[in-house]
Amino acid sequence: MSDKPTPLSGFPELLPEHRAVERQVIASLSRSFELHGFANIETRAVETVDRLSKGGEIDKEIYALRRLQEDDASAGDPGPGRQLALHFDLTVPFARYVLENAGRLEFPFRRYQIQPAWRGERPQEGRYRQFTQADIDIVGRDELAFHHDVEVVRVMVEALDLLPVPNLSFQVNNRKLIQGFYRGLGVPDVTAAIRQIDKLDKQPAEAVRALLVSEAGATEAQADRCLELATIRVADTSFVEQVRALGVEDELLDQGLTELAAVVEGCQDAVSDHVSLEANLRIARGLDYYTGTVVEVFMAGYERLKSVGGGGRYDALASDGRTTYPGVGISFGVSRTLIPLFADGALEPGPKVPSVVLVALVDEESRAASEDVASALRRRGIPTEVAASAQKFGKQIRYAERRGIPFVWFPDSSEVKDIRSGAQTPADSASWTPTQETSP
Amino acid sequence: MSDKPTPLSGFPELLPEHRAVERQVIASLSRSFELHGFANIETRAVETVDRLSKGGEIDKEIYALRRLQEDDASAGDPGPGRQLALHFDLTVPFARYVLENAGRLEFPFRRYQIQPAWRGERPQEGRYRQFTQADIDIVGRDELAFHHDVEVVRVMVEALDLLPVPNLSFQVNNRKLIQGFYRGLGVPDVTAAIRQIDKLDKQPAEAVRALLVSEAGATEAQADRCLELATIRVADTSFVEQVRALGVEDELLDQGLTELAAVVEGCQDAVSDHVSLEANLRIARGLDYYTGTVVEVFMAGYERLKSVGGGGRYDALASDGRTTYPGVGISFGVSRTLIPLFADGALEPGPKVPSVVLVALVDEESRAASEDVASALRRRGIPTEVAASAQKFGKQIRYAERRGIPFVWFPDSSEVKDIRSGAQTPADSASWTPTQETSP
Repeated sequence: MSDKPTPLSGFPELLPEHRAVERQVIASLSRSFELHGFANIETRAVETVDRLSKGGEIDKEIYALRRLQEDDASAGDPGPGRQLALHFDLTVPFARYVLENAGRLEFPFRRYQIQPAWRGERPQEGRYRQFTQADIDIVGRDELAFHHDVEVVRVMVEALDLLPVPNLSFQVNNRKLIQGFYRGLGVPDVTAAIRQIDKLDKQPAEAVRALLVSEAGATEAQADRCLELATIRVADTSFVEQVRALGVEDELLDQGLTELAAVVEGCQDAVSDHVSLEANLRIARGLDYYTGTVVEVFMAGYERLKSVGGGGRYDALASDGRTTYPGVGISFGVSRTLIPLFADGALEPGPKVPSVVLVALVDEESRAASEDVASALRRRGIPTEVAASAQKFGKQIRYAERRGIPFVWFPDSSEVKDIRSGAQTPADSASWTPTQETSP
Repeated sequence: MSDKPTPLSGFPELLPEHRAVERQVIASLSRSFELHGFANIETRAVETVDRLSKGGEIDKEIYALRRLQEDDASAGDPGPGRQLALHFDLTVPFARYVLENAGRLEFPFRRYQIQPAWRGERPQEGRYRQFTQADIDIVGRDELAFHHDVEVVRVMVEALDLLPVPNLSFQVNNRKLIQGFYRGLGVPDVTAAIRQIDKLDKQPAEAVRALLVSEAGATEAQADRCLELATIRVADTSFVEQVRALGVEDELLDQGLTELAAVVEGCQDAVSDHVSLEANLRIARGLDYYTGTVVEVFMAGYERLKSVGGGGRYDALASDGRTTYPGVGISFGVSRTLIPLFADGALEPGPKVPSVVLVALVDEESRAASEDVASALRRRGIPTEVAASAQKFGKQIRYAERRGIPFVWFPDSSEVKDIRSGAQTPADSASWTPTQETSP
């Protein structure tokens, strides 16, 4: 390894001080999810190609694997139908895991998963070829009560509220509401209409209106109503009245309104100044499999990233032909959120090293004495390192400064220096505890 | 997804109760490493093939990546010299990371990394196609003082001592000692001799003796001395006298003896009944790049796995042509250790769910009351879930039992039942704390 490597586009890596923040974020999310009874799992990085490949756009982004030297057939390749590829999300692996282990899981099964996924797409801000996601899902066997929709949104609201990121906004809708509305309105192709409405964040209303007519067979009047529905966006349940005022009657619409109102209502005491939640009736999420609640999460000042999270209810997360497993879940883009914030300097970096104390070294002969102090501090849970070499104390102090280690311990005088304030005080390694930084 | 999937050989996945143990192990290792000032980093899963490929045996095991549909050249493939592949260890990525970020790191740089790696080898017990490793390394710029060898071994001894695994044995040696001994003895091909001695765990001494003669050009008498050296194995520094008694004089040998004695001495107060350490003069570690300390870790009762960890000193971990970065590190095989233990039932599984309390549900109408209790408990850090449906209390209790949730809370009577002991007592969600299980 004698050449200087250059970064790979789309595969960002963090310096230790940024990784420390990412670790805190992941630990905070994990704690929140576990507080709500979600168990962690980790799935393998690979799936068989036939499980991943859907014949759609995503196929182009799948990274398939082959052994570098394929000659050695004896090493047990999985065979043609079992070609391996890296997963591009955590939902496909989770669905497969549920089917594979159904007999050994208790349902409803709450799980969270925080892992990388891979997509060979064109790298851009917020879009990477390797990226870490945090997913929560609740999956049932045969059925999954609606109240889990409320639960999963609440849990994610509470979890994200604790993160050191800009304000977040949960935009919630319900596919039954949209579908019922279009059906009650008499739009000929409801699915096509949803697909067109989903384009509202990229195209002007007028263009979408024309598409509703040309692609979904709507009349001009119906297209107008669809657009009116899509403009409704409120932080409380008043959307119910606004939809009713549009005069469409449909049983599925009623169900959608009730469910969406329950999500909005059920999250009222979880939202905050930092994390808000609105019913936004134009949120559709293009993917076909959502069947009820849909949600997208946006970050203030970073609307250009599109959503930093999203999810919803799918009545058939997985099925083995005999049993169907409905689920509801939300995914949060850890890399998509943090990496642009680091790039902008919008997130304070963490410490470069975990050490809180540097024990100075008088001379190489007395290294054991410095190590004894370090051991005593570590036994009491204080991360400590010993100076690498017996330079002048001034140099050892600057070494600590450069790394952001707040305390330097002098074993010869049994004193500790707070290098933020400059204060140097006598200290006993059996009882001393680090103090928080005090404002100058 | 309508078929029932079957597991992929070599890609083990854990049930939630086993994953809980793996997470505890990873958290414990991380805490230990950070206590000693090691910073965490995470490298991307991929490297360029030219960086990974060495033309050796390992090349056959490398998983190369290609996009499933390569037609879309515009999506920015890395180009022929930059073909991507999954890393097969954490050392190659770390070396590349150090070179890439050298200007932004402080040296000596202590880092730990706990991540999966991939090898397309034939799966067997302890050998998987995806496996998680925990690596610690200390890397210097231009130079790295010897005392870091002692440090890195000590840190790993202390870290592994806290794990709930069978007894572990660190077997330490020094390449300078072996090389100096062979050189002082006059063996013509020192490197070939090391390679033959490394076969002692697979072949009988007599066969290795013949190979030393035929492959390393040793005389019969020299081969005997090499084998004598290889039988020395002690838990203290008495190996120094035993080696001296063999009558070989060499400067490099002296240096090796001093270094190995320092490692053994320096770990005396870290070893325990659970983790022992010995100087074992036949440990060589085949790989070429080790230049001083070498170590392998074995697990009692699992000698068939060969080592569950290992590492050593390499004077050129990385180099960019101008600057050389020497390092010393040890890798611990998390998957290699835990998965066989799970398979044997030798490791107690953790809880299936993190929940400590199940709040019972009287009827669907009073779900909010149950949720209020759950919120109050969670605010005080107690992982809590609410019953999925308002079944009879007996069924709700059995639901908790099946998942290993120790407490069921009845919001109507404000009582909590410890389902391990059967005791049911009045409780206030604002002050109650779970008690540890008491022996029956």
